[in-house]
Amino acid sequence: MNIDWVWLQNQLGRDKVSFNESVRSTHAQDESYHSPHLPDAVVFAESLSDICHTMEFARQYSIPIVAFGAGSSLEGHVIPIKGGISLDLTRMNRILEVRPDDFLVCVEPGVTRQALNDYLRPFGLFFPVDPGADATIGGMAATNASGTTTVRYGGMKNNVQALEVVLANGQIIHTNSLAAKSSSGYHLTELFVGSEGTLGIFSKIWLRIYGIPEQNMAAAAEFSSVQSAVKTVCSLIGTGVLLTRCELVSQQYLEIINRQLGTAYTETPTLFLEFSGTSSSILADVKLAETIALEEGCLKFTAVRIEEERRKLWTARHNAAYALMRSYPGLSHMSTDVCVPISKLPEAISLAEEWIRRLQIRGGILGHVGDGNFHVSLMVNPNDKEDLQHAQELSHHLVDFALSVGGTCTGEHGVGLGKRAYQKAEHGTALEVMREIKRLLDPLDILNPGKLVDD
Amino acid sequence: MNIDWVWLQNQLGRDKVSFNESVRSTHAQDESYHSPHLPDAVVFAESLSDICHTMEFARQYSIPIVAFGAGSSLEGHVIPIKGGISLDLTRMNRILEVRPDDFLVCVEPGVTRQALNDYLRPFGLFFPVDPGADATIGGMAATNASGTTTVRYGGMKNNVQALEVVLANGQIIHTNSLAAKSSSGYHLTELFVGSEGTLGIFSKIWLRIYGIPEQNMAAAAEFSSVQSAVKTVCSLIGTGVLLTRCELVSQQYLEIINRQLGTAYTETPTLFLEFSGTSSSILADVKLAETIALEEGCLKFTAVRIEEERRKLWTARHNAAYALMRSYPGLSHMSTDVCVPISKLPEAISLAEEWIRRLQIRGGILGHVGDGNFHVSLMVNPNDKEDLQHAQELSHHLVDFALSVGGTCTGEHGVGLGKRAYQKAEHGTALEVMREIKRLLDPLDILNPGKLVDD
Repeated sequence: MNIDWVWLQNQLGRDKVSFNESVRSTHAQDESYHSPHLPDAVVFAESLSDICHTMEFARQYSIPIVAFGAGSSLEGHVIPIKGGISLDLTRMNRILEVRPDDFLVCVEPGVTRQALNDYLRPFGLFFPVDPGADATIGGMAATNASGTTTVRYGGMKNNVQALEVVLANGQIIHTNSLAAKSSSGYHLTELFVGSEGTLGIFSKIWLRIYGIPEQNMAAAAEFSSVQSAVKTVCSLIGTGVLLTRCELVSQQYLEIINRQLGTAYTETPTLFLEFSGTSSSILADVKLAETIALEEGCLKFTAVRIEEERRKLWTARHNAAYALMRSYPGLSHMSTDVCVPISKLPEAISLAEEWIRRLQIRGGILGHVGDGNFHVSLMVNPNDKEDLQHAQELSHHLVDFALSVGGTCTGEHGVGLGKRAYQKAEHGTALEVMREIKRLLDPLDILNPGKLVDD
Repeated sequence: MNIDWVWLQNQLGRDKVSFNESVRSTHAQDESYHSPHLPDAVVFAESLSDICHTMEFARQYSIPIVAFGAGSSLEGHVIPIKGGISLDLTRMNRILEVRPDDFLVCVEPGVTRQALNDYLRPFGLFFPVDPGADATIGGMAATNASGTTTVRYGGMKNNVQALEVVLANGQIIHTNSLAAKSSSGYHLTELFVGSEGTLGIFSKIWLRIYGIPEQNMAAAAEFSSVQSAVKTVCSLIGTGVLLTRCELVSQQYLEIINRQLGTAYTETPTLFLEFSGTSSSILADVKLAETIALEEGCLKFTAVRIEEERRKLWTARHNAAYALMRSYPGLSHMSTDVCVPISKLPEAISLAEEWIRRLQIRGGILGHVGDGNFHVSLMVNPNDKEDLQHAQELSHHLVDFALSVGGTCTGEHGVGLGKRAYQKAEHGTALEVMREIKRLLDPLDILNPGKLVDD
């Protein structure tokens, strides 16, 4: 059947459907090492009705429809590996409603997390989930993104209150209510969060938001080894210190950060911590954290009291991966993402360090260690077979270990293309249930085909 | 087809399959006003294999299989309205594994919440979700139960880490990993939590557990009206005071509690609050809470400093519904359970009070007001048509209001039989997706038929 693109252009308006080579090529890739693949067309949706028309069109011709936001995914999620339509949602970037008294905000999927927080600041509110990139909320919901504040606030699954979703069959559904809790019906919101565009397209997202804490204080705790840093984290959590952030930055990473960002951190494994609350409770927490850290062998514990210094510290942490990328121009970025029960974290990081040394990996370890999640960020030459093989070997070893101790192959980046091979090993017979749900909701396999449950 | 019960008795052992009239009749009802219905047989499962054999048997003869725990459901969930098998899981009451360093525990479905907490106490750990009844963990997971600590720790959906589930087709699946977060595959755990035995039978449950706080302090704040009590709660949450519990007890309820439990609470709308943490942070929180409460018109704010007094206060709150039941012997208990966005709570409670007066309802208001959830507990004579009609009228008005402001018909009790009629109004087109998932996972409709998505 000839695809009648003119019909779609007439429905949406000519400027919303692009066949331009450079537009298609920016929609052919994400920020990962995965090979690009061009979509046949890029559709810029500006409304629910645009999404519905595009879905109708994709269904009619059985062509893929792949949602696209900031393009910052790390496992090839947005690459239209089977062509079809890249559905760009960045023009749907309105903040539709904020309800300060209910701690809720309703956004379109193309709103980015920084734009949202800029908007919320005058209300004394913020949205905590912070992946490294300034991703769109739609993309963050689709991958169940999380970040440095997850140890305190949870990731997207915990912070998406409700969704408006356009299904493959054209139906528009609304999941969950706006009540803080509910035992009514099946929990569809959580089913769609993390479904990576394979079950439906999000057209509206209600998020939980929070009061900006009265005060924040950061601290940098330096260690002679990653092991003692991680042990400190286990102790901190055990004693119930309320951590808002708890990040490990490896020595290699601090070298890169200092070089690229002009900072002067001691180049040794360091925990970046954050405490939030009232001034009196924070001081007590920082003091307790310092005592525990020193007991576990911390070399130096520096509480950062000045707000500007605190911001600098977190800017450095957030830009770490980008600093790494800039250090190796021409190479592609790859990141492991295992997450393990916290007691297994020291062993997992030991293993990572051993393989980094053995395979002479370019990169370092960054960890949301309070959640048992860490990344080996590495720069690979995708055209160099041996290089890529080494990187994948490292990833295999880490995933194998994580699964052997009840962990997961991906704590926050998602499956996309890169983690499909581990789904059977991780989920066993539950994978078949996932595939049945996929077939139920998308019988023509038009929604981001070839990803997540597809191998 | 003649049902060959002997086959099942041979598989499981004769003592596990009962046709005894009194055994069947204790499995014919729950703690609600819904009419009992006898199962054809009661099966006492003692192992995964017992569940599997029973499922195979039910599938073979297309007969219903209805999971049964403590029998404390409030909407008829466990009533086998179409006969078949009541699958009693209370003999599966082993605590299989506790991992203090990972803050996880693995239990069989028949473990009760109090038995679990007795077991965890020596580890310095506890499981926070506390519905009024000493329910089984399996039942609590199946209804997405919550309770007085949900404002701080979340309900079952937030605290079930992973599940082993026996599906209608006989497959055993394991949902989620033991990692604190994951973006791997679809989130099946949340789909099964709250599914009320309609999608599968839980055979093993991993729960998140927490360190027992260093210190707890309770407070009773008395008000002249429910309205000013609720406004206080909204202010407390707005300012970010960390509440571990935040319960409203109405004047009618305090009269009943005093009479039945021999306590001497002032008979006026009262907030029961709890604060947890380190001694210094608690004192600051209590002080702030008192200031806010007095600003909002609190008549008397009494911090309860002695541990025994604190326990007494929460025992009174937890036994409130039972005290009500004992006050009206011979009558049945019914409870509304709407949950609304917190800003709508004063209006919702006003409406409830107005209809309680107008319809001369026996009972009172109890609320997990920090979550926007409250109950009108009422005693009805199910054989008195007018009495039942009044109760249902009250419930209708409250649900209508809740849905009109984006709330839910049930915050924590679940749908069962009593809230089926509201599912279409609440979920709209999403209900069809729920029904399709039900048909996918249970094509023969043997799992708790006639409940939740069935109308």
